[in-house]
Amino acid sequence: MALTAVGSIAFDSVRTPFGARERMLGGSAVHFALAARFFTDVRIIGPVGEDFGDAEFGLLDEAGIETAEIERIDGAKTFFWAGHYEHDMNLAHTDQTELNVFADFEPKLTEQARAASTLFLGNIQPDLQRRVRGEADAARFVALDSMNLWIEIARESLLAAIAEVDCVLLNDAEVRMLTGHPNLVKAAAKLIEAGPSIVVAKRGEYGAALFTAEDRIAIPAMLLDEVRDPTGAGDSFAGGFLGYLDSIGSDSISSRELKRAMAYGSVLASFNVEDFGTDRVARLTRPAIEERLAEFRALTHFGG
Amino acid sequence: MALTAVGSIAFDSVRTPFGARERMLGGSAVHFALAARFFTDVRIIGPVGEDFGDAEFGLLDEAGIETAEIERIDGAKTFFWAGHYEHDMNLAHTDQTELNVFADFEPKLTEQARAASTLFLGNIQPDLQRRVRGEADAARFVALDSMNLWIEIARESLLAAIAEVDCVLLNDAEVRMLTGHPNLVKAAAKLIEAGPSIVVAKRGEYGAALFTAEDRIAIPAMLLDEVRDPTGAGDSFAGGFLGYLDSIGSDSISSRELKRAMAYGSVLASFNVEDFGTDRVARLTRPAIEERLAEFRALTHFGG
Repeated sequence: MALTAVGSIAFDSVRTPFGARERMLGGSAVHFALAARFFTDVRIIGPVGEDFGDAEFGLLDEAGIETAEIERIDGAKTFFWAGHYEHDMNLAHTDQTELNVFADFEPKLTEQARAASTLFLGNIQPDLQRRVRGEADAARFVALDSMNLWIEIARESLLAAIAEVDCVLLNDAEVRMLTGHPNLVKAAAKLIEAGPSIVVAKRGEYGAALFTAEDRIAIPAMLLDEVRDPTGAGDSFAGGFLGYLDSIGSDSISSRELKRAMAYGSVLASFNVEDFGTDRVARLTRPAIEERLAEFRALTHFGG
Repeated sequence: MALTAVGSIAFDSVRTPFGARERMLGGSAVHFALAARFFTDVRIIGPVGEDFGDAEFGLLDEAGIETAEIERIDGAKTFFWAGHYEHDMNLAHTDQTELNVFADFEPKLTEQARAASTLFLGNIQPDLQRRVRGEADAARFVALDSMNLWIEIARESLLAAIAEVDCVLLNDAEVRMLTGHPNLVKAAAKLIEAGPSIVVAKRGEYGAALFTAEDRIAIPAMLLDEVRDPTGAGDSFAGGFLGYLDSIGSDSISSRELKRAMAYGSVLASFNVEDFGTDRVARLTRPAIEERLAEFRALTHFGG
């Protein structure tokens, strides 16, 4: 099994009530891959600038992530995002976005990238997601993540992209916004009618919900003593969720396995937010993940 | 085992995206009692006006709730609340509040009311809650519910009331607001230092979290096709939660039983919001509760 992830590879400057950091390694594909690598082989597709150096490649290489298809463009700069969180850290405010190398990104997938069993389309412009999806037509399972920006400025493209995938991940407010339906269950059903068989509604510190034609799943999030930086939590969730599903094979996806995948997603997201940027997930181990999964079960299972 | 509930007994006029209703039976003590009665004997303490008639008493009597201590005051009117909910139904907007009989309410508990094993102090002015708590000094377990209004205009009274109870129930934002701590885990720990051994953070459509000195519990809410009126959901939760705890006896409260109580609270709240006012919970049966508890388990347990 193998997973190809396309999405932003970025430098992030982040300020939260618990501190501020400049130009940390970040981006949707990076956070995703660092979480998914515990379950399956992961490769990242995407462009970086010449400011993306040995430290960044080294971190990804050491994590066992395939970086051969990260395209380093001379004379250009890596995608940059600056943002901050207020007292209520469920909401990110964007202070600055520099597309840089992403302005002219033309995804070209190698034979190996196209042969992956699972394809993750991280949060980038939906037409770009569609082009990647078109190239990776051998993938048995394709998932897409997006955000309110694309609902606002590229709604039709996003709906077209969603129609072509198996699984869509959005915040719960975005699921409602995209469908215009105030009830999440009905909003998710409307998305499922449009194509995907699985809709995941991410709910920040409250956990996540999942819908298929037959199933409904809801899990809380871990209750954490320290939440320093929520940036990338959604991508870490997607990494744990899709990494686990890829590891069992898309033919084996059942209600039970979807719940387990949600739990792994939640666990990976819980580690992500405990420290800035990739700091916590980059030095994570599989035993620590299993230990927290047991804690998560103790937190929420109410017995027979 | 028996439970005494003090709180508002009201007429509510409510408008939601799914309809509007005038002068329905409502109030914190009413919603609480209708949920708790499935688990233990419940009596309501509180005043009503002469507009509170046979229909209202009849509904409570038929539900098996002891109404002998509901004081009907001639020439006065029942507490009245009018409010509405927007597209996002997590937030209630108050349009009108008429204290009426509650303006001069002087709680006097009978011997039977004071002998209850559990006392629930529903959302009323915190000094009133303290007086009731002082009268019911035989209760083995005392729980208090409150709201942002009292944090804003009677903070010191509320903190004094909280210091005298075993369990406090608030919305998660209110737990943060009251303690000034942005992290819910630390905010709850601060409340526990002040007196109560159990802090429940209600999270609306997202479920609830619970904290003791040793335990953390988080459960989601049911994912519902129909959410017509969230009024009273927090009180229904409290009714299921405290009704179950009273039924097992406060000496038997364990981590396992607290989780089960949270699940019952969530199930009762899920029924409450499916229809306006008390419509759904008033005609509920215990088998329907057990059936939904099984559905709830299937929704959220992710297996071993």
